[in-house]
Amino acid sequence: MEPLLPYVAELNLVDHHCHGVLRDDVDRTGFEELLTEADVVSPWGTSLFDSAVGLAVRRWCAPLLDLAPNAPADEYMARRLSLGASEVNRAFLVASGISVFLVDGGLWPERLSGPSVFTGSREFPVLRLERLAEELVGDGPKAFPDAVRAALERAPAVAAKSIAAYRVGLDLAPERPSDAEVVAACERWAGNGRCADEVLSRFLVWEALERGLPVQFHVGYGDRDVTLHRADPSLLTPLLRATGPLGVPIMLLHNYPFHRTAGYLAQVFPHVFVDVGLATHNAGHQAGRVLAEALEIVPYGKFLFSTDAFALAELYHLGALFFRRALSDFLLSALRRHAFAEADAVRIAHLIGWENARRAYRLD
Amino acid sequence: MEPLLPYVAELNLVDHHCHGVLRDDVDRTGFEELLTEADVVSPWGTSLFDSAVGLAVRRWCAPLLDLAPNAPADEYMARRLSLGASEVNRAFLVASGISVFLVDGGLWPERLSGPSVFTGSREFPVLRLERLAEELVGDGPKAFPDAVRAALERAPAVAAKSIAAYRVGLDLAPERPSDAEVVAACERWAGNGRCADEVLSRFLVWEALERGLPVQFHVGYGDRDVTLHRADPSLLTPLLRATGPLGVPIMLLHNYPFHRTAGYLAQVFPHVFVDVGLATHNAGHQAGRVLAEALEIVPYGKFLFSTDAFALAELYHLGALFFRRALSDFLLSALRRHAFAEADAVRIAHLIGWENARRAYRLD
Amino acid sequence: MEPLLPYVAELNLVDHHCHGVLRDDVDRTGFEELLTEADVVSPWGTSLFDSAVGLAVRRWCAPLLDLAPNAPADEYMARRLSLGASEVNRAFLVASGISVFLVDGGLWPERLSGPSVFTGSREFPVLRLERLAEELVGDGPKAFPDAVRAALERAPAVAAKSIAAYRVGLDLAPERPSDAEVVAACERWAGNGRCADEVLSRFLVWEALERGLPVQFHVGYGDRDVTLHRADPSLLTPLLRATGPLGVPIMLLHNYPFHRTAGYLAQVFPHVFVDVGLATHNAGHQAGRVLAEALEIVPYGKFLFSTDAFALAELYHLGALFFRRALSDFLLSALRRHAFAEADAVRIAHLIGWENARRAYRLD
Repeated sequence: MEPLLPYVAELNLVDHHCHGVLRDDVDRTGFEELLTEADVVSPWGTSLFDSAVGLAVRRWCAPLLDLAPNAPADEYMARRLSLGASEVNRAFLVASGISVFLVDGGLWPERLSGPSVFTGSREFPVLRLERLAEELVGDGPKAFPDAVRAALERAPAVAAKSIAAYRVGLDLAPERPSDAEVVAACERWAGNGRCADEVLSRFLVWEALERGLPVQFHVGYGDRDVTLHRADPSLLTPLLRATGPLGVPIMLLHNYPFHRTAGYLAQVFPHVFVDVGLATHNAGHQAGRVLAEALEIVPYGKFLFSTDAFALAELYHLGALFFRRALSDFLLSALRRHAFAEADAVRIAHLIGWENARRAYRLD
Repeated sequence: MEPLLPYVAELNLVDHHCHGVLRDDVDRTGFEELLTEADVVSPWGTSLFDSAVGLAVRRWCAPLLDLAPNAPADEYMARRLSLGASEVNRAFLVASGISVFLVDGGLWPERLSGPSVFTGSREFPVLRLERLAEELVGDGPKAFPDAVRAALERAPAVAAKSIAAYRVGLDLAPERPSDAEVVAACERWAGNGRCADEVLSRFLVWEALERGLPVQFHVGYGDRDVTLHRADPSLLTPLLRATGPLGVPIMLLHNYPFHRTAGYLAQVFPHVFVDVGLATHNAGHQAGRVLAEALEIVPYGKFLFSTDAFALAELYHLGALFFRRALSDFLLSALRRHAFAEADAVRIAHLIGWENARRAYRLD
Repeated sequence: MEPLLPYVAELNLVDHHCHGVLRDDVDRTGFEELLTEADVVSPWGTSLFDSAVGLAVRRWCAPLLDLAPNAPADEYMARRLSLGASEVNRAFLVASGISVFLVDGGLWPERLSGPSVFTGSREFPVLRLERLAEELVGDGPKAFPDAVRAALERAPAVAAKSIAAYRVGLDLAPERPSDAEVVAACERWAGNGRCADEVLSRFLVWEALERGLPVQFHVGYGDRDVTLHRADPSLLTPLLRATGPLGVPIMLLHNYPFHRTAGYLAQVFPHVFVDVGLATHNAGHQAGRVLAEALEIVPYGKFLFSTDAFALAELYHLGALFFRRALSDFLLSALRRHAFAEADAVRIAHLIGWENARRAYRLD
């Protein structure tokens, strides 16, 4: 394995999409259930340590807990418990070398803390749109449209996030819905259960964009609530055409296995940015191929870094580690092919790791 | 080219999905028509020996018939004929090193024999569901549901196989159909032609699973009867959600070019297993990329080996040869990247080549 | 970087799909707007020189204008202007080493010239079907079917091209429409705006094939008018089944990111050919992976070379350069794996670069 390019090893990173870290300790079953997108450890499979990310924990995380590389899973879990969650969280977050986190805090707020609690790094909130709707629907359908607008106006967030992919799929109509349509949708929903209505997902996105808030879309790979062909970013094309004139960025997250399609969208739509998020630590030692594919046709000014780390501090570390490895391999391969000069490689690394996020989210 | 890892070269293999071997000799046109998924040799193309699998026959099969590597196609065919089918079949089946075959015997039963006829290896039958329906529909629509159940109860098979992908596409509804719906479907069909009815394909799958029979689905790549976007495994998601509680394995076969989507399904659904089957010998010297992609996010306890070899004994040999090569390259690349320890590599090889199939099909 | 295989470096090339070259000079903004499939340079991104193809212009085109490799973009643009369009066009077209061009002249005829104007190479016209319809609809709906047939009879073209993917998507019905249906479609359209009607696209394709004209379909990747999931070549399957008996070639262009799906179609349908066109120069130094994937299961007698170069002469040069590099790497990798003999590699290169196009378009 070749050394990382020094300007990739030392690259400042904005993680433009992650979640919080588990405050409490977790046992082996709980750990495995958080390790991949599987909810449970299958009785038909084997341990989820038998996976790229599971083996990466044993290989790359164990040494940070003063264990030998590739320590057995039980030994790893015992050591993790003996150190305690705070110490473990701090160790992995510091090791990640991530300077700035954009945090979707809408899941498990009672069990997770933002990364900055453990490291003092900069942190910006991202507003989860469907959760906002679920909080506001209780005030009644008629009040809903204005309540959403008011909440978006006063939200301290640097971006909003839509999980339409999970709730209704990405086949959203392009039109901005009228308030009457939104009220009717709320009446149908009546706040029973999750916000899972195409009109409402679309309304939330339009209102956020109208207020200048960049909108992140979950796309592709995720937990079993996703139906993958309904989470193809190409389904967003009509909405991307319609929202372009607003001039506010839209970020397509993860995208796996549609990351090439996402790259196309980022090339042809001026306001679209993409990443490979969650796929990075899940593909582990194979993340380089996924990143390289994602970078085939995307302009380098439109690609972002994220971990989509959730709950386990290991995932921030592995997300950053495999991203740096993949980016370094991509650049090294290009340099060997004389694709561009070293100064270009330095610039591309800086754009992808830092500058594109700073510009798109106006982080200054 | 690097030597195979010894524990991959000597790996015991369960081929969890293949067909029978042609008992009789075949001429060059007949051979080419069986070599790929093309029914005929195109007058617009060239010989189908101008393909990855065709060149692989000349390179890797010729020496087993005492010809030079890369012997010309006509020389190969002449030698094959002079040896005779039995001798050729034995040579390639032994060379494959496959110990256990799960055989879908539902196609061309009059022309094909199971591999064990030529090698004495262990062999287990797989029941072809749509063929079963075609056999039983003659007894009348009303008798059909119970006849299917009785046949499944007494079937000696270790698994059932659905070719819904070919007949109706994989967009199957999740609900278990009632007997009344099944009878109505049989009345519509009346046994005229193939079983190509969404209700019936769904019924057959549910009944097999209810009886504890793992169900294999043809997915993706196949002959020209497949419409590829209707054979996307993601279309099965609602049925996978619904059948999970039965706790019986479902195997997604081939999956190319949706093998990453299949890997996602195997990660998030406890009862789902996947392979790349048919794509292995067709991609030939490029099978390594396909296998590596398929292994990006799939848990290593959920991936299987198969050849999908049909009629030509060469395809068992090439399926096993390119699978071993691809698996060895995957593990070597991971070891060079320090992704895991050698003991882990040995374990992964054993899981994929043998243990996952043994466990999922209860082969003991 | 390894030297090109000599028989790939010197390979005669038929570019079976390209457009004309810009006759006039172009400034930096205009150049960037023609460089990728993006219409405009995004205010949210950076310069489109920050892309694989942009960096490739600086690296591989600058030296042909007597600049240093990786010359800055502004220096490149200044030099390009000082030389003038004719000199620049000639330099890049000669450097491409392409001997024969099949040119879709239907876009910007007033601003573009065929490549042969600058090089004296052989050139054959391709008839753009939707443009033909737009020219003929003015004579009235009733006259339309016969007018199309007459125009196709007398057209000097070696092929026709359908952009149904852009206009209506590729989900075309398989049936040949009747003249009554075509007249009705023309009455609905009335020539207002573009030809964007499923019946008409289908009619045009059938009429071209009936007259023995091979039909090229734009598939997959293109400008923002494409909705990618509606440009999946798999959607053409019913039409491919229906048109097979005509025995006239159909060419699927570009196909990215569905190039594996296209390979499947070329394998199973005798009259289907494929390429990766536009993706070659856009993926730039990464084109090798795209080409290798496209060649996984396609018979080597069914794959073609094209640049899809449009307006900028650089794109012919880069298309040919990255194609040669990708093909050489594919063959070298196969030879290292002993996949076939050197004579086979020579033959595969000749088939793909020259012979398949010559045969399919009857270029003699």
